[in-house]
Amino acid sequence: MATLGAPTKKHKVTIVGSGNWGSTIAKIIAENTKAHPELFEEDVQMWVYEEEVTIGKDSKHYDPSIGSSPQKLTHIINTYHENVKYLPNIKLPANIVANPSVVDAATNSTILIFNLPHQFIGRISKQLEGKILPYARGISCIKGVEVTESEISLFSEWIGEGLGIYCGALSGANIANEIAQEKWCETTIAYDPPPVDSRVATPTGPSPSSSSVNLTITPADAPHKDVLGRNSKVRLRAVPSDYPPLDHALFKTLFYRPYFHVRMVSDVAGVSLGGALKNIVALAAGFVDGRGWGDNAKAAVMRVGLLEMVQFGKEFFGQTVHAGTFTEESCGVADLITSCSGGRNFRCAKMAVERGVSVDEVEATELNGQKLQGTSTAKEVNSFLKARGREEGYPLFTAVLDILEGRNTVDDIPALLARVDDV
Amino acid sequence: MATLGAPTKKHKVTIVGSGNWGSTIAKIIAENTKAHPELFEEDVQMWVYEEEVTIGKDSKHYDPSIGSSPQKLTHIINTYHENVKYLPNIKLPANIVANPSVVDAATNSTILIFNLPHQFIGRISKQLEGKILPYARGISCIKGVEVTESEISLFSEWIGEGLGIYCGALSGANIANEIAQEKWCETTIAYDPPPVDSRVATPTGPSPSSSSVNLTITPADAPHKDVLGRNSKVRLRAVPSDYPPLDHALFKTLFYRPYFHVRMVSDVAGVSLGGALKNIVALAAGFVDGRGWGDNAKAAVMRVGLLEMVQFGKEFFGQTVHAGTFTEESCGVADLITSCSGGRNFRCAKMAVERGVSVDEVEATELNGQKLQGTSTAKEVNSFLKARGREEGYPLFTAVLDILEGRNTVDDIPALLARVDDV
Repeated sequence: MATLGAPTKKHKVTIVGSGNWGSTIAKIIAENTKAHPELFEEDVQMWVYEEEVTIGKDSKHYDPSIGSSPQKLTHIINTYHENVKYLPNIKLPANIVANPSVVDAATNSTILIFNLPHQFIGRISKQLEGKILPYARGISCIKGVEVTESEISLFSEWIGEGLGIYCGALSGANIANEIAQEKWCETTIAYDPPPVDSRVATPTGPSPSSSSVNLTITPADAPHKDVLGRNSKVRLRAVPSDYPPLDHALFKTLFYRPYFHVRMVSDVAGVSLGGALKNIVALAAGFVDGRGWGDNAKAAVMRVGLLEMVQFGKEFFGQTVHAGTFTEESCGVADLITSCSGGRNFRCAKMAVERGVSVDEVEATELNGQKLQGTSTAKEVNSFLKARGREEGYPLFTAVLDILEGRNTVDDIPALLARVDDV
Repeated sequence: MATLGAPTKKHKVTIVGSGNWGSTIAKIIAENTKAHPELFEEDVQMWVYEEEVTIGKDSKHYDPSIGSSPQKLTHIINTYHENVKYLPNIKLPANIVANPSVVDAATNSTILIFNLPHQFIGRISKQLEGKILPYARGISCIKGVEVTESEISLFSEWIGEGLGIYCGALSGANIANEIAQEKWCETTIAYDPPPVDSRVATPTGPSPSSSSVNLTITPADAPHKDVLGRNSKVRLRAVPSDYPPLDHALFKTLFYRPYFHVRMVSDVAGVSLGGALKNIVALAAGFVDGRGWGDNAKAAVMRVGLLEMVQFGKEFFGQTVHAGTFTEESCGVADLITSCSGGRNFRCAKMAVERGVSVDEVEATELNGQKLQGTSTAKEVNSFLKARGREEGYPLFTAVLDILEGRNTVDDIPALLARVDDV
């Protein structure tokens, strides 16, 4: 049986990813592992996709003896404690250890924080499969969801299924650079692992009183369902009891800073959906604002959009999704407000209406080759809805795509929204 | 017994008030009474506080034969169909009848729309008492609530108690001038009359088949509770059955325009509270924005404020208040968003922080003698909370007053909000 008594082990934390947002989260985590030595190993491994970087003459880290010779990014981070390429001018805690090998960085970690572009999830999962602690837990900081005509996938589920572990999700009204500068904001973390599968043995580590191993097997256990109601391949293993419990309080301690407030919830799907669907609403807000209809109309579009977000979550994810995740949490209403204030989707949509051109045109001329999230999400969500005959139930989401593709204009929005609103 | 069959009478509608917002609502109502002759008498009476107005030479209504001689405002409205003083350059429907006598305007009306500064409620109620149809129903478009140390009063309740009728409430992200220009927006109307008191006879009017009068008396009926749970003096009379039923569908028909979308709810207290409490939150948003903390921090303050609004409603009004009124309706989240975008409280608070002066100072120099709603509401709500030992339960509301009165600074906000947020 599991050992009772105070935990004797500490959690080792690894950050998988080191871009702008990854480095910012690493800063937060490393500040907290240092502040809570009773819970965490102080050093935080951060996997860095290795590249050669030249430090310019204007940097305080410029070394004349090196000159413009390129240096490894891991070396720069570990030497100067700054990610000069992706989070310049922000001092990183010295207990962040940049590591070019993701397998090495993740070895023996009980907590894995995923913060990398979603395109890399598959490759990284393959590299890590079988190399991590089988009872590790993950948190995905990758915003949004993947929507296709046939299904909606949560990035946290991809990761969890790929690695055979449970993975929660973090999302909020969070702009990395502002947080890195310790400007105050909030975030939401969803963490709700299913019951552990008691058929799967989790060895408890050595403890002062006992080295017994939990090998109880209960063959009657059913495979657990993932958040989408599908049978999960994952047989969740218990975290050995000689670690501090991996619960809401522990994750809050790991992420909470005076400048980064955290609310813990259990609704992983809601947290993830918010970060994707808000981009459609931001386009609508930009359209209305560009049309000069004022703040009331913009607020109306945001309100209607927020309710369509709730409805979408409840319709396609059932009881796992709570309305409050959208209407009361940072990952919902706050992220929506931020995106509709100055976000890229909002700004491009507004500009398009003001100039009388398409959003695609604005995207091409204003974004230096970068792509708007909202336009592709609007398209994907629409094909998902269309495949189920449910376009009409989401008049705002549908109107946004119709405007993007020239079938409707901004002037049609009030009439399009009136359909559902009529007595 | 009441007469069955199709309604034979039509509702007569009176607007009590003719300022900027009153004239705008009158325009909407008059458009709808004309569009629905089966339900409403076409002419809409609008009570106008009579004053002498001079039409300037630059107005299209300037008449050289009158010159700069002052004319009665009612005469101007009835002649030119424009409220040149309070809603200039907006064409009013010709079926609005401006009337300087509130008693005359309200006579025989089944629907009374109150849209006047709240300071006048008492005087007007006294004038109207006993002069209106005993089974009339009201809608108050007066935003907010009255908060003192000892109680919170809804303007709709003042009106209802004063006149012995039931009065609902309208509130939303509504700027009169924008609506008058038919820029699209939304509003929320709360209407939830208690059961009629069957001890009070309501004569049914003559009908084709019968002139019988409903005089059933059931002495067992208890007095109804008002929305605050107090025993109401009002013995609610049934609307005679030869009128179309005064239900949600009818009020929606009366207020809904293609440019003015309406959602009907039953939560009068929630609708009214939203319009007052959002001003406190708008000050907080202005503080944070003025401090340069960016959109994330502003959204965080708005989210926390929204939840304090919900909590306040639920704590002091109990089950009559629904969280969704704040988080999902125009009178809640949308009005909050608008107020935190460009509203007066937001702008003055922002300016105060940017200039390093007090909000009172900005108010004195920037508002031409007008007063900010948010500062007095923050004070009143605080004394209400203090009297109940509940200041600490509302850290944002409390922080706003502490900043206004110099006991805290904007920099303290994250720490003050962290208190409730900690695990």
